[in-house]
Amino acid sequence: MSGQERVRAVLENRLVQRAVILVIVVNAITIGCETSAYLMERAGGLLHAIDRVALAIFTVELAARLYAYRTAFFRDPWNWFDAVIVAVALIPASGPTSVLRALRILRALRLVSAVPSMRRVVGALLAAVPGMASIIGLLVLMIYIAAVIATKLFGEIVPERFDELPRSLFTLFQIMTGDDWGNVAQEVMEHKPWAWIFFIVYILMSTFVALNLFIAVVVNAMNDVDPAETSEPTELAAVKQELAAVNAKLDRLLMRERQEELRSPADR
Amino acid sequence: MSGQERVRAVLENRLVQRAVILVIVVNAITIGCETSAYLMERAGGLLHAIDRVALAIFTVELAARLYAYRTAFFRDPWNWFDAVIVAVALIPASGPTSVLRALRILRALRLVSAVPSMRRVVGALLAAVPGMASIIGLLVLMIYIAAVIATKLFGEIVPERFDELPRSLFTLFQIMTGDDWGNVAQEVMEHKPWAWIFFIVYILMSTFVALNLFIAVVVNAMNDVDPAETSEPTELAAVKQELAAVNAKLDRLLMRERQEELRSPADR
Amino acid sequence: MSGQERVRAVLENRLVQRAVILVIVVNAITIGCETSAYLMERAGGLLHAIDRVALAIFTVELAARLYAYRTAFFRDPWNWFDAVIVAVALIPASGPTSVLRALRILRALRLVSAVPSMRRVVGALLAAVPGMASIIGLLVLMIYIAAVIATKLFGEIVPERFDELPRSLFTLFQIMTGDDWGNVAQEVMEHKPWAWIFFIVYILMSTFVALNLFIAVVVNAMNDVDPAETSEPTELAAVKQELAAVNAKLDRLLMRERQEELRSPADR
Amino acid sequence: MSGQERVRAVLENRLVQRAVILVIVVNAITIGCETSAYLMERAGGLLHAIDRVALAIFTVELAARLYAYRTAFFRDPWNWFDAVIVAVALIPASGPTSVLRALRILRALRLVSAVPSMRRVVGALLAAVPGMASIIGLLVLMIYIAAVIATKLFGEIVPERFDELPRSLFTLFQIMTGDDWGNVAQEVMEHKPWAWIFFIVYILMSTFVALNLFIAVVVNAMNDVDPAETSEPTELAAVKQELAAVNAKLDRLLMRERQEELRSPADR
Repeated sequence: MSGQERVRAVLENRLVQRAVILVIVVNAITIGCETSAYLMERAGGLLHAIDRVALAIFTVELAARLYAYRTAFFRDPWNWFDAVIVAVALIPASGPTSVLRALRILRALRLVSAVPSMRRVVGALLAAVPGMASIIGLLVLMIYIAAVIATKLFGEIVPERFDELPRSLFTLFQIMTGDDWGNVAQEVMEHKPWAWIFFIVYILMSTFVALNLFIAVVVNAMNDVDPAETSEPTELAAVKQELAAVNAKLDRLLMRERQEELRSPADR
Repeated sequence: MSGQERVRAVLENRLVQRAVILVIVVNAITIGCETSAYLMERAGGLLHAIDRVALAIFTVELAARLYAYRTAFFRDPWNWFDAVIVAVALIPASGPTSVLRALRILRALRLVSAVPSMRRVVGALLAAVPGMASIIGLLVLMIYIAAVIATKLFGEIVPERFDELPRSLFTLFQIMTGDDWGNVAQEVMEHKPWAWIFFIVYILMSTFVALNLFIAVVVNAMNDVDPAETSEPTELAAVKQELAAVNAKLDRLLMRERQEELRSPADR
Repeated sequence: MSGQERVRAVLENRLVQRAVILVIVVNAITIGCETSAYLMERAGGLLHAIDRVALAIFTVELAARLYAYRTAFFRDPWNWFDAVIVAVALIPASGPTSVLRALRILRALRLVSAVPSMRRVVGALLAAVPGMASIIGLLVLMIYIAAVIATKLFGEIVPERFDELPRSLFTLFQIMTGDDWGNVAQEVMEHKPWAWIFFIVYILMSTFVALNLFIAVVVNAMNDVDPAETSEPTELAAVKQELAAVNAKLDRLLMRERQEELRSPADR
Repeated sequence: MSGQERVRAVLENRLVQRAVILVIVVNAITIGCETSAYLMERAGGLLHAIDRVALAIFTVELAARLYAYRTAFFRDPWNWFDAVIVAVALIPASGPTSVLRALRILRALRLVSAVPSMRRVVGALLAAVPGMASIIGLLVLMIYIAAVIATKLFGEIVPERFDELPRSLFTLFQIMTGDDWGNVAQEVMEHKPWAWIFFIVYILMSTFVALNLFIAVVVNAMNDVDPAETSEPTELAAVKQELAAVNAKLDRLLMRERQEELRSPADR
């Protein structure tokens, strides 16, 4: 067994895989604990130490995988995912930027790539996206058009909601989720009483499109998963096989009868 | 090849179609940019120029399509859609009405008619509407009845919500979407403590009807799309065909036996 | 043709039925108009006159139906529905109670019984209710239990939300619909910081049960409607019929062979 | 009939079971009434008496069941459920802790174990949970990651929402339910204008995952319940049985033909 194979055996060992999952979970918890001033005061050193150890383990594990699988490593997109997360985790150590430090918790996402059932769930979620592309495009188009109209018509009346296109986009996204839209509409309607037309048309249309987006996902999911449907063809296949056997036997019968017929005039 | 056919070939050229889509997208972006005072100051002339060029391209393309397809042009509802949008886009150039200027962005809807997959999505959305007509009618009837009752009972107590029928309709639509209904109900209940009956009955009934509206759409969608269901009849058809062959062979066997029987008494 | 049959023919005439629908719609609009002080000042007399005429027409039509169908009249629940609505409409004429006057608009519900497609939709909605009884019961039980707990624990802290059982029930219904629950929870959490447990458990459980209520409705609807499913048994039935024919022919073949066999020893 | 069997017969008597259900309902109502200061003043003694009687009945019934079924008692999880509820109900009598007193109403949950249809509904609800474990895990992971990021980035800006991890978790759960998220986002955006990225990404992702959680439940439910699907295999089974008969008969035919063939050379 070569060194490469030995490393591979270790990596595919169930205990090792569970240990890695444990390290991910522990690390996620310690990063969470670091947000608490109380805990940092008392156990800050310990938390940082655990964090550094965990990062070291991740780096070693990734390097081991790279060594064990070589080029095959880059074929699995989940490996890319892990590599990016570990790489990002290595960067903030150098700079003290607060955003990058906050993003360190993204390391917890490695849980997804380490637990097979989660990997499958995320795979299924992502697989559902392309089928929804057209409807999402339509939804984005609708929000964009509504935002341009709202900026032009209501921008000067309610500047804190509609003064610029980006803010209008945000407000209209908020309205689409149904949050507090009554107040926004009423603020506008104080100046332009006919504005209810805009809001009601927008809500009805965006809800209807979002509803159909939802339906597209459900219909896709049902067609993909449905096991009852797929079990039946096998049943039918059995019927077909039996029927083929019947047919073959009939062919043999017919053949023999013909032979007999051919022979019989001579016989008799 | 006549001039008409040449124009048609150009219009159906993939590159030309992509170019039109590009013009639509660019135009949508420039109209969006026009909402920004900052950009208008710096590049207002350019934005207006692009806008005018885009409109010219749309007009030319529409005229070309009208020339190329003649009467067939009017048979496709998407062409009517494009024609109306371009016509509306040509009007506001003459008058400075702010609403019409704001509606110029509707031109971006041409993206729907230009991209086949979006066309299909919108077609599917519109096809779902007739099947929901009865439930939508019921929902509108319920909101109308609730609005008349609310105006009569609560109009004098909470005039900013229920003073006139249109405002009551708006408030009840808002309540149906679940936005801030608790506050509206509490304002009313301060004066009429039994008003919770009205609001809870209204919410339960409107939600239930809206839920069934939703279900009608889902059930329609599933029946339309389901490909697994349609694949099976072909399987069954194969079984039936095979069975028919078996039957025919048996008929031949029976026929021969009968012939033999008829002959045999003479033979023997 | 007896008088009874003649009345029945008139009632079942399409034009008469449409006229009744028209009267219902016009009456619904005039009752709506009566809520407007502006319109009442100018055309109050006209509106009241139309109202009285419409009520007279409803009464006459109902009496005619009673005369035409006699006892069969009481067998259709929709006739009971109409009778109750007309009866309620006749009462408020005598007394000036505001609530009863407001309920006059319920007359517009006659539209449901007069339009066949609406009748069917409402029938389908009501048919869905019994299947959901257990889940609705569970939901009511959950809200009741949560309301008793909330009244005991939070009644003295936030009396305007939880002071008495009925108010707690209202607040918890509001929380279940997701309206403004964050604020309610925060008010309570100011005094009892652990209250988030109660709110999050309540929201998760009530949402989960409500979601399953929804699923029960969808599953019921799909099983009722699914036409693709029902078409297949006929396909299979055809296969079965053909197979039975095959079997019968084989029986005849076997019978003949046996007869031949029985005869042949003697022959030869 | 032994004493054990007699007790069992009594417990399984329909009238006895209905009486127990009645006691549960009455007890639930009296516990609800105890929250009213007005009723406690007037009928507090009666309410407490009913409560004690009900608890006694529950204890006796549970003891009887334990006596009647012996070890089989512990095999049904619903019996454990009842035992725990009655045990909890017996504790607070000793101590005056307000929380435990409030939890007395949980006794009403015995209604679930006493009514078979409710038992089935709850069983179905619980059976749906394991299938959703991965998606729930993903959702929890997402909220946790978002909460850590939010605490680090927004903790100092909006301390009343994000100062500590637990509060951030609560706020993000609230945002996921769509309640008042616009205000939270706007508070943060006053200081960090780019914060909309965080909120919109979080809302889109959590809604998408929650939606898929929902779909998983629906798909599970449909596969479990679908009776149309299960009826077909029986149809197919009939076809298969018939086909097997056909095959057997053909085998007999072939066998005879062969025998004849073997005999015939000798005969002729």
